Amino acid sequence: MSENQSVAVFGLGAMGYGIAQSCLRAGHETLGLDVVAAQVDKFKADGGSAKNIDEVAEQLDTVVVVVLTAEQTEAVLFGENGIVPLMRAGGAVVSCATVPPDFARDMEKRCRDHGVHYLDAPISGGAAKAALGQLSVMASGSEQAFEKARPVLDAMAETVFELGDSAGSGSAMKAVNQLLAGVHIATMAEALTFGMTQGVQPDQFLDVISKCAGTSWILENRAPHIAEGDYTPLSQINIWPKDLGIVLDTAKSAGFSAPITAAALQQYMVAVGMGLGREDDAAIAKVYARNVGLTLPGEE
Amino acid sequence: MSENQSVAVFGLGAMGYGIAQSCLRAGHETLGLDVVAAQVDKFKADGGSAKNIDEVAEQLDTVVVVVLTAEQTEAVLFGENGIVPLMRAGGAVVSCATVPPDFARDMEKRCRDHGVHYLDAPISGGAAKAALGQLSVMASGSEQAFEKARPVLDAMAETVFELGDSAGSGSAMKAVNQLLAGVHIATMAEALTFGMTQGVQPDQFLDVISKCAGTSWILENRAPHIAEGDYTPLSQINIWPKDLGIVLDTAKSAGFSAPITAAALQQYMVAVGMGLGREDDAAIAKVYARNVGLTLPGEE
Repeated sequence: MSENQSVAVFGLGAMGYGIAQSCLRAGHETLGLDVVAAQVDKFKADGGSAKNIDEVAEQLDTVVVVVLTAEQTEAVLFGENGIVPLMRAGGAVVSCATVPPDFARDMEKRCRDHGVHYLDAPISGGAAKAALGQLSVMASGSEQAFEKARPVLDAMAETVFELGDSAGSGSAMKAVNQLLAGVHIATMAEALTFGMTQGVQPDQFLDVISKCAGTSWILENRAPHIAEGDYTPLSQINIWPKDLGIVLDTAKSAGFSAPITAAALQQYMVAVGMGLGREDDAAIAKVYARNVGLTLPGEE
Repeated sequence: MSENQSVAVFGLGAMGYGIAQSCLRAGHETLGLDVVAAQVDKFKADGGSAKNIDEVAEQLDTVVVVVLTAEQTEAVLFGENGIVPLMRAGGAVVSCATVPPDFARDMEKRCRDHGVHYLDAPISGGAAKAALGQLSVMASGSEQAFEKARPVLDAMAETVFELGDSAGSGSAMKAVNQLLAGVHIATMAEALTFGMTQGVQPDQFLDVISKCAGTSWILENRAPHIAEGDYTPLSQINIWPKDLGIVLDTAKSAGFSAPITAAALQQYMVAVGMGLGREDDAAIAKVYARNVGLTLPGEE
């Protein structure tokens, strides 16, 4: 049995809400925080702590930060009313956003100055797995950070990859994964729409290619969205300029040329320019379809 | 039971030899032909027909063409001593090379002028599956072409995708598959070497990413070659400028923009320029490693 902890989850979006629910289910006293008051109220109604953050800050064992960006992460931890200076020594921060590895190293150092452990812990798996406590976590940090965060990791994750004893390695692996996933989505769309110009229909594409050397996890997961014309945003286009931007910024700092990632990023930028930012990322197919004058399934 | 046929296999390379062996094993009288005399002699010693092509041409049921290019395919079918004009009406050609869809349509038409059925039948699966008769075939052609070629398809393939009633659709699907596979190889190499600049070792890359959203069939198949430093050519770099060239030529004819495929092709061109054309296609990692000054596993 894991010890029951006092936990705060910052960010009750698609992923954070599921993580907070998973913490509750595991028996942790869990306070949910979000800029959207309705999400906070909903979580309280689901069994979340009714206390204010000021009341519990000093008693917190683990803080989980499930925001979108490095800037938001820094604001939660060290901004106005930042949580880290309020925490007692020995507490842990589990930082889940996709951020540059150097940012994670900086946050670890600044947390250490307050006696707080920092776990660099980007997540993967989507909202459905978050709700079930079955995420994958690409984690790195000190032995003490892992030890303190373990009850929360146990609650939220099916798989915890332990990638090293300091912050940065977790975010590096996440960047590698995002490079692949982001390119694979755009390439799937490029191949599917190219096939359409040659008479290959999306259903047939999916039936055949999913059994051939060209398949990928992404292809099997996202191509059905195009075949069905359903762009309900399970993962938004807007994520990719951010995440591939992190990859390319990190690559540039390392003197590393990443031409395929760069080409994929441009396609996402076109998608954003077309106003598709809040659609499912499979909607990148609409960029290709528009360029060549194709009609995708479900379109007029 | 399939009927026993008189079969000729043109091209006894890695794929063709396995197909010819599979035809023999299925009980077909099989003549193997290749520009390399040693391969022809080896196949005869394995149980292949000892006759000359001139002796059997008029009795052939099915001709399987397993050469590399459209030019070689055309030479086998209609060049000097081309086989099609020698065949009796009702015979079938099974054309396995990766070729442009329009080329396949042209070959079908020219075969039809001789009363010969043409099956547009690109293959996938690699040399090991070819030897076991377990290839995947992306086939299209007339009902009569499928019917006549069926005993040979049964011998060589585990899966036959029947993609339409005329030539072109098989080659179109193959082009779609090659677009994905070719981009996925280069992207795997881009991600793996980018990871190395951030301290992610190839073994760790493979362990983690193969369980995450960034995985692909290609990644799981080819990344071990890099992690083990083994570039024994199971599939050569040289294939990709040819196959991605077919994709981009076909795309250009359709007015289709394929920027990610184009970026990947450039990386293969660099690999060829580095003298890596005959190495395994996972050696595209050496392009990235050279550019940033990394040492890959197995290198000095």
